[in-house]
Amino acid sequence: MKGRVYLVGAGPGDPELLTLKALKTLRSADVVLHDELVSAEILALIPSSASVISVGKRGGRPSISQQEINRLLVEYGWLGLSVVRLKGGDPFIFGRGGEELEAVRQAGLECEIVPGITAALGAVSSIQVPLTHRDAASSLLLISGHRAHEVGIQLSHADLAKTTVVIYMPGQNYSRIQKELISAGMAGETPCAIVSQATTRYEKTYQTCVSELHNSPELPSPTLLVIGETVRFAKPATTLNAISLQEHASERVVEAR
Amino acid sequence: MKGRVYLVGAGPGDPELLTLKALKTLRSADVVLHDELVSAEILALIPSSASVISVGKRGGRPSISQQEINRLLVEYGWLGLSVVRLKGGDPFIFGRGGEELEAVRQAGLECEIVPGITAALGAVSSIQVPLTHRDAASSLLLISGHRAHEVGIQLSHADLAKTTVVIYMPGQNYSRIQKELISAGMAGETPCAIVSQATTRYEKTYQTCVSELHNSPELPSPTLLVIGETVRFAKPATTLNAISLQEHASERVVEAR
Repeated sequence: MKGRVYLVGAGPGDPELLTLKALKTLRSADVVLHDELVSAEILALIPSSASVISVGKRGGRPSISQQEINRLLVEYGWLGLSVVRLKGGDPFIFGRGGEELEAVRQAGLECEIVPGITAALGAVSSIQVPLTHRDAASSLLLISGHRAHEVGIQLSHADLAKTTVVIYMPGQNYSRIQKELISAGMAGETPCAIVSQATTRYEKTYQTCVSELHNSPELPSPTLLVIGETVRFAKPATTLNAISLQEHASERVVEAR
Repeated sequence: MKGRVYLVGAGPGDPELLTLKALKTLRSADVVLHDELVSAEILALIPSSASVISVGKRGGRPSISQQEINRLLVEYGWLGLSVVRLKGGDPFIFGRGGEELEAVRQAGLECEIVPGITAALGAVSSIQVPLTHRDAASSLLLISGHRAHEVGIQLSHADLAKTTVVIYMPGQNYSRIQKELISAGMAGETPCAIVSQATTRYEKTYQTCVSELHNSPELPSPTLLVIGETVRFAKPATTLNAISLQEHASERVVEAR
């Protein structure tokens, strides 16, 4: 009997942001292959009868290749197991879920996709920034900052005044991104927010604007950069638990919860 | 005592795509104000002790104004109640959640945002189209087709070859949208998929390409239009329960489950 492979979105971090379907799928898994970013609280929901394998990839460390992950999904599937590939956020947004789907299909196995709350939605629910707004943004562009040289290319095509832009994995090179934003025509006063470890108890937010982006502090990964007029709606820092960073006294780093 | 207002995303339709947090919030609600698109199965999860009010807006019918909805949220909040504003998809994507947030804040009430699986993520999980892919799309653009004249403007700025575009609420005027897509520079052979009532038992999918878009059938609302090279990965219609529409024999309308 052939098994079945589930590509499951674990959401942005908060275990309560799992969907009911993701939880159900996890609870009936025989084997779970998870990213490093999936939190311990979420892994704790997996039944003890299941094998749990970390296939996390993080910059600078030896890690399992994508090809090897694909091979494992297929091998376990062929053993007749219920295989859950548990991915941070949503499996189809910047998670190489498409490549895993192809590998599973090519092996003749059934694949099911369980969507998840993607990081952008989690982050803006915490800082209370609507991604679209009648007066401020009629579209939403999600791009990956992983390869910084592509940010400029992608942004130069965006209708910047009417779009909320969310850069996934901007890294710490904010000077570079700032340059790309400005050369793409983004106004210096456009507000932005960096959200670190969104929806977890470690969440931190830093609010600034494009012309000051290069002065941003290094916040723990994963981070997201939200840019656009809608960021003006962000929850005022005073209602959160504000930290004053000496070197950024004029700006705001806030810690949630 | 002041109450609290929760803007809660109900997801795309399938009750299992509610988050655990959305379910918890619903279960402790005193009053729930919901969109017309929130399904009966999801409304059935609300405890009988709560008041349930439909504030749905649908084209062509008299409906409660946004201002009236805002007023109700504030009034119930001031009564000290736990008020849930239950919205299809995610509250911050094309749902006017930003306007409700502002109204609640201006009234001095606490607001909490519970994100939801937005329609685009639900639809592509069903048809198995990755929204980003190393070889096919490095960004994702979500736009609203509600005002068709803006689609062209927004698309003319997109880096079309490398972007998956999802148009929310495209309506039935596919000829108009096709014209906008082509004048924005979209290649005629770019594949697209129309997904109707995604993730519900009534889900239907129609696969075509930009140059044939004007021949698309009218599928029941709500619909989503997904455009881009990543649509080539869509689950083959043969593995779903195919319907042959006589007038579209060469193309594919498929019904899920």
